[in-house]
Amino acid sequence: MAFINFKSIRKKIVPHNSSEKFNELVQSFANLPSIGKKTALRLAYTLLENHTLALKLAHNIENAVRFIKPCQKCGNLSENELCEICSDENRDKNLLCVVQSAKDILILEESGSFDGLYFIFDEISDELVLKLRNFISENACKELIFALTHTINSDALIFFIEEKLKDFHLHFSKIAQGIPSGVSLENVDFISLHKAMAFRTKIKE
Amino acid sequence: MAFINFKSIRKKIVPHNSSEKFNELVQSFANLPSIGKKTALRLAYTLLENHTLALKLAHNIENAVRFIKPCQKCGNLSENELCEICSDENRDKNLLCVVQSAKDILILEESGSFDGLYFIFDEISDELVLKLRNFISENACKELIFALTHTINSDALIFFIEEKLKDFHLHFSKIAQGIPSGVSLENVDFISLHKAMAFRTKIKE
Repeated sequence: MAFINFKSIRKKIVPHNSSEKFNELVQSFANLPSIGKKTALRLAYTLLENHTLALKLAHNIENAVRFIKPCQKCGNLSENELCEICSDENRDKNLLCVVQSAKDILILEESGSFDGLYFIFDEISDELVLKLRNFISENACKELIFALTHTINSDALIFFIEEKLKDFHLHFSKIAQGIPSGVSLENVDFISLHKAMAFRTKIKE
Repeated sequence: MAFINFKSIRKKIVPHNSSEKFNELVQSFANLPSIGKKTALRLAYTLLENHTLALKLAHNIENAVRFIKPCQKCGNLSENELCEICSDENRDKNLLCVVQSAKDILILEESGSFDGLYFIFDEISDELVLKLRNFISENACKELIFALTHTINSDALIFFIEEKLKDFHLHFSKIAQGIPSGVSLENVDFISLHKAMAFRTKIKE
């Protein structure tokens, strides 16, 4: 019969203290979003088993930090002063989509649902408002589309920007809310259900 | 009524080609185990939003690759020539646990279920057999415990090692197999169920 020393059973796997450098690496990974302690450990071991993979990752992180900067015009990530979208003459300059992060631009671009310009509005400041006004003037935009995650704050942000731009006589719109494709009703919050019902669309007969 | 251009809807989110450096970073993350494309993107954005976090991670990867080496005796990860376990005089040298990776040592250490020595046997080679023989001689080990993930290969490995060490007159054992704590029977494979039944333990009356 085996006796177990329950006192010595710890709940979580934490690295033992054999290597400070190892613990630091695990901690660095665990600081990233969606990486738990167990995954951090696994990643650290993987890199120590494969030095080429490890040094390439370190090199790519340093390169990205060094060379990728916000686009001077719209705030998108770019290796040049202007991002590919701002410097693309074929985009529809009538349409301007306001988003909250470069990640949102990526997602919209990959969906292929928009071919206008973007502007990242990620903080409420007079400087950013001025930049947005200049951007609209330069491109002679006609419609401003808000593509923001719906929260009480985003409604306030839309109201704030509309106020600051009212002399431009732009058309303002925001992306439709509703039930995502493939999601069952039981998994949707009540606000989205209300919106989906209120903004229901007619089915062609 | 909105018309959707389905041709332009792509199945997967892949980074667009605005920044080669960005794509390289995403790819580097996606090469790691348990990191999907979406997580890789998220990690890349996080690092670009937080340069301190990014450079610290890069630095810790480089440091780990540079300073962490296998222990000269047992193969465990260590910043010194000998790991903490091999250089600890208080460990029980009668017991030697054979594992397949440094990660296994970490897990066993954290469980607090073993206080003997370890040896990592991660490839079948005469050199490693010789190293194991020297290790056993030096420490005058009495019992060799195999802590391997159960597969057909691990049975073969146990047989192979036993053959190579038969002149030592060691006691050989392997860790018990059975039902993990907190796991219901329906989630356990049939081999484990068979083993759990065959090696059932008597309950004290």
